[in-house]
Parts: sequence; structure tokens; C-alpha cells
Amino acid sequence: MPELKPDFDLVLNRTTHVSTDRVWKAWTTPELLKQWFTPKPWRTADCAMDLRPGGRFWTLMESPEGDQFSGEGCILEVVPERRLVWTSALGADFRPNPSGTDSMLFTAFIEMEPEGTGTRYKVTLLHAEADGKTKHEAMGFESGWGAAFEQLVELMSR
Amino acid sequence: MPELKPDFDLVLNRTTHVSTDRVWKAWTTPELLKQWFTPKPWRTADCAMDLRPGGRFWTLMESPEGDQFSGEGCILEVVPERRLVWTSALGADFRPNPSGTDSMLFTAFIEMEPEGTGTRYKVTLLHAEADGKTKHEAMGFESGWGAAFEQLVELMSR
Repeated sequence: MPELKPDFDLVLNRTTHVSTDRVWKAWTTPELLKQWFTPKPWRTADCAMDLRPGGRFWTLMESPEGDQFSGEGCILEVVPERRLVWTSALGADFRPNPSGTDSMLFTAFIEMEPEGTGTRYKVTLLHAEADGKTKHEAMGFESGWGAAFEQLVELMSR
Repeated sequence: MPELKPDFDLVLNRTTHVSTDRVWKAWTTPELLKQWFTPKPWRTADCAMDLRPGGRFWTLMESPEGDQFSGEGCILEVVPERRLVWTSALGADFRPNPSGTDSMLFTAFIEMEPEGTGTRYKVTLLHAEADGKTKHEAMGFESGWGAAFEQLVELMSR
């Protein structure tokens, strides 16, 4: 587990009846991820995931009006059905992403473990500074990542 | 191997009579690294290396006048006696480093393999953009990393 800095970091905890292997599958299968990763009414128009340390994790989000937001990232750690770590600070092959003055760069720890037949789910975002946390919170971290997870649960419950 | 972008990246190739296990030891043992990592007349005043993906790699360089330069980094990949990958874009626990407008953020691939009883040694630095390569070159990449490696060879030849 990463060492948390309360002023810098964001944590989301959820539980679901969806089994851990299915939560993992939803996170690591691009065709599934595209169906839940972006809260409606936006959608994930495209996605690439090379599931290994140094592999690219890229998403293209799109609004109903056709506005697009491209997110370049890099997979850092893969522990099947337990833990997926990725960062927006790097891209494919661990290459640094152009950062400009973007204080919102983050590293995401996606953690899951079985609870009964369901799953205990936790998202932790580490930022470089307090400003990154504040901006991410203002953009709706809890509602955004929470809504996305509800979409995952709905999808994997079908 | 990372996919290179010639306009963005820097490569240094060297061979030495020092064996691969000793080159690896010089890179991964803080007390040894402090003796070669910074080209003279500067020196490495302090160093921390937590040799695992997500572990901190920190160096403190010091000039003869006492000026200090602190470098925060993160280990990304560890293949003993073959490959060490680390980046200045992240710190401990993969946390993004404050970047400001620093286009010089890089990821370093340190690769080595036996050649006879010696070692073929290669450093590859990936930058986010061409500007990072240009600045790094202007600061003396070839002379700096080359001089550091000569210090490593001298140290490990004793």
C-alpha cells in the first residue's frame, strides 16, 4: 500500500455484489471498460490497454456534442484480481507525458478483494501536491469515479 | 526495449572490462553509487534507493561550494544484472513529482549484458518532448553520463 498524504490524496471505497474476477475483467478488457469508464452523458469512444508494467493505458472520452478528451497513461503494476496501478504522469514504455503546468497528474491504485461472493473496492489517487487534490475534488472525484463504478456494477450484473 | 523517438531520446553506449555483476552492484548499492554517480568536482552527498517497482530513488548532488541539487525519482523495473528502469517523473510509491514546467523529466533505461568477461552498457533516456532532449544534451548528457560511467569503472576496478 502507498503511504498516504491526506492533503494530497483522494480515496473512494465501495462494496458490490459483483465478484472480484468480474470487477477485474471490467477494468482490464477494453471492450468492457468502454461501456462503464466514463460517467454518462459522456462516453468512452476509444481505449487502449497494454496490461503490463510499462504498457499504455489510453482513453478517449467524448461528450454528446462530440467534444473529446484524450487521456494518456501507463500501467505500473498488475496483480490479477487484486490490484491495478497506473499513472497519468507517464505514457507507453514509461515515457514521461508532457505535463505543462498540470498539477492534476495522478497515480491511481485500483484495489479489490473478495467480500463474501462480492467485492470490496477501493480507488486511491496520489497527487504531486495539494492543488492537484483540490482541483480533482472540484471536478467531482467522488461523484465521477463513484458514478463510473455504478456503471461497472450495472454492466457486470447483466 | 522501449520504442525510441529519435527527436526525443538520448542514448549512450559503452563497453568496459568490469563484469556485469559488479556494474549492477555499483548501480544498486547506495554506498557505492555515492562514489561514482555525480561527475567531479560535484559529488553525491546522499542517496536513497529502495530497489523495487514503486521504490524511491533519491540523490543529493553537491558542488565544491556547497550548492545542492536534489533529484527525486522512482524505480519502475528491476531485472538483476540486466536492466534497471527509473523515472524522474514519479517519486516514492509511484507518486507524481511536482513538475512545474520542467520539460526535462525523463525515464532512464540502464541496460547491461556480459561481453566476454566485461560488460556492454547502455543508457537510454526517454523525454516527453524534443525540448527535453535538447536541454539535456546542452547540459552535457554525453559528457556527464559518460564521465559518471568512467568513475564507476574506476571505482569497480580497484
